[in-house]
Amino acid sequence: MASSTSSTRRIDVVRIQGRERRPEADCAVVEEPLEIRLHRRPFAVIMRTPGADRELAAGFLLSERLITTCDDLGTIEHCTDPEAVDEPSRQNVVNVTLTDTSRLDHALAERRQVTTNSSCGMCGRRTIESLASDVDPLSASLVVTAERLATLPDGLRAAQTVFDHTGGLHAAGLFAPDGALVDSAEDVGRHNAVDKVIGRRLMRDELPLSECVLFVSGRSSFEIVQKALFAGIPIVASVSAPSSLAIDLAKEMGITLAGFVRGDSFNIYAHAERIRA
Amino acid sequence: MASSTSSTRRIDVVRIQGRERRPEADCAVVEEPLEIRLHRRPFAVIMRTPGADRELAAGFLLSERLITTCDDLGTIEHCTDPEAVDEPSRQNVVNVTLTDTSRLDHALAERRQVTTNSSCGMCGRRTIESLASDVDPLSASLVVTAERLATLPDGLRAAQTVFDHTGGLHAAGLFAPDGALVDSAEDVGRHNAVDKVIGRRLMRDELPLSECVLFVSGRSSFEIVQKALFAGIPIVASVSAPSSLAIDLAKEMGITLAGFVRGDSFNIYAHAERIRA
Repeated sequence: MASSTSSTRRIDVVRIQGRERRPEADCAVVEEPLEIRLHRRPFAVIMRTPGADRELAAGFLLSERLITTCDDLGTIEHCTDPEAVDEPSRQNVVNVTLTDTSRLDHALAERRQVTTNSSCGMCGRRTIESLASDVDPLSASLVVTAERLATLPDGLRAAQTVFDHTGGLHAAGLFAPDGALVDSAEDVGRHNAVDKVIGRRLMRDELPLSECVLFVSGRSSFEIVQKALFAGIPIVASVSAPSSLAIDLAKEMGITLAGFVRGDSFNIYAHAERIRA
Repeated sequence: MASSTSSTRRIDVVRIQGRERRPEADCAVVEEPLEIRLHRRPFAVIMRTPGADRELAAGFLLSERLITTCDDLGTIEHCTDPEAVDEPSRQNVVNVTLTDTSRLDHALAERRQVTTNSSCGMCGRRTIESLASDVDPLSASLVVTAERLATLPDGLRAAQTVFDHTGGLHAAGLFAPDGALVDSAEDVGRHNAVDKVIGRRLMRDELPLSECVLFVSGRSSFEIVQKALFAGIPIVASVSAPSSLAIDLAKEMGITLAGFVRGDSFNIYAHAERIRA
């Protein structure tokens, strides 16, 4: 029960099958809180599966618009100061420093505002307008064939090592236009899996990812498309359905959005021009 | 694209099947931000599927420990003041008043603290300890048969009207010990679906739900078990796997936790004594 760096843990279960009932050994996916600190000051706590914590923190800070490129990142490391963090928690705290601290106080203060600009309420339309005023739509000329796109679920599944043990994880994969897997991550949270793969590219100074396709297990929500936008990923696809706001955002910001990618079929919800026969 | 009270929206898609490519009409699940205000002051913004917004707000505030019973709730209503909320956003803002406002300033201030007690970091152990110091473990004598529990996925699926149109929703159901569906809700967020069904019971002053089983689509995370705890629900089951922290919390707080409920089989991860042959 102490903090752990492993992504799975052995557990005892009672297995019920019809009228049978027997004890069995099983595996559960580990979920632990990760605290992200900015210059040692608390910024956010995320429930996540341990592993790629620094990448997760980098991706999360990109999504929060605290950083936009690798150059904005100073250091990013697990907190090992014994006075700041006690032993069992060390693996669950990441401290990040920014190269430009002039925005730090503002960022911490803004984070504390539940809504930054909600004096007259919010609607989906306004949410998208506010993003569009801050970021340019993607115009990447990337094109992939429908045939390649249909191979992504198998490509991601092959890389999901933890899923095989627990059946309990979300996954995100970055793919090259030829269908080759560039990187993947698994996590109890679908958003975290996306932050981990994007964060790793950011730390290598490889943003924008204008030659990449993002494929996620489950649904595409507004936030998934938003993360792709900030990373410059022009094509997002998922196993299941996108939400209305994910579709609206993709249309507005020049992102190709596909869903229900199963077998040799799928739906395209926005910017179908990047998918060729 | 204006705010909507409908949970689905007609959309146009390009359907790819092998080498075929044709335009089709389809349906997407609606996702819109809901702003929850406390005495007209911003408290939180949740991405959710419109519908049962007041119930969602009530359940969310229970999870946040802002309220513990129906008596703590003053009013809870969509914001209709034209000076406070402009027209397209009206359906996306709920204003809540508390009967006891002495805790209001503290609650709003605490909400702004990213972590309330993290000077020495966090681990799963401490997260659970902090909960256990605040809430008593559940000791409800509720018992259900394995046979009944195995019927819950079908019972919930039968109530999922939106899922049939979009394939993109999570669902949560409350069941009586005899397997009868008491209530259900659907949402783009699994947590929201749980908050909606629990919030509705809270508004009817029916907490604790010591005679209810909570069944959720997808996985059981720490937060799902935590929501059950605050509502006094002694049995939680899900279609997929629980996380390690969900299992730890269920064990510690006297909650029966089942997972992988499929066909006539499932696993019990904690407090198997409430499931009989």
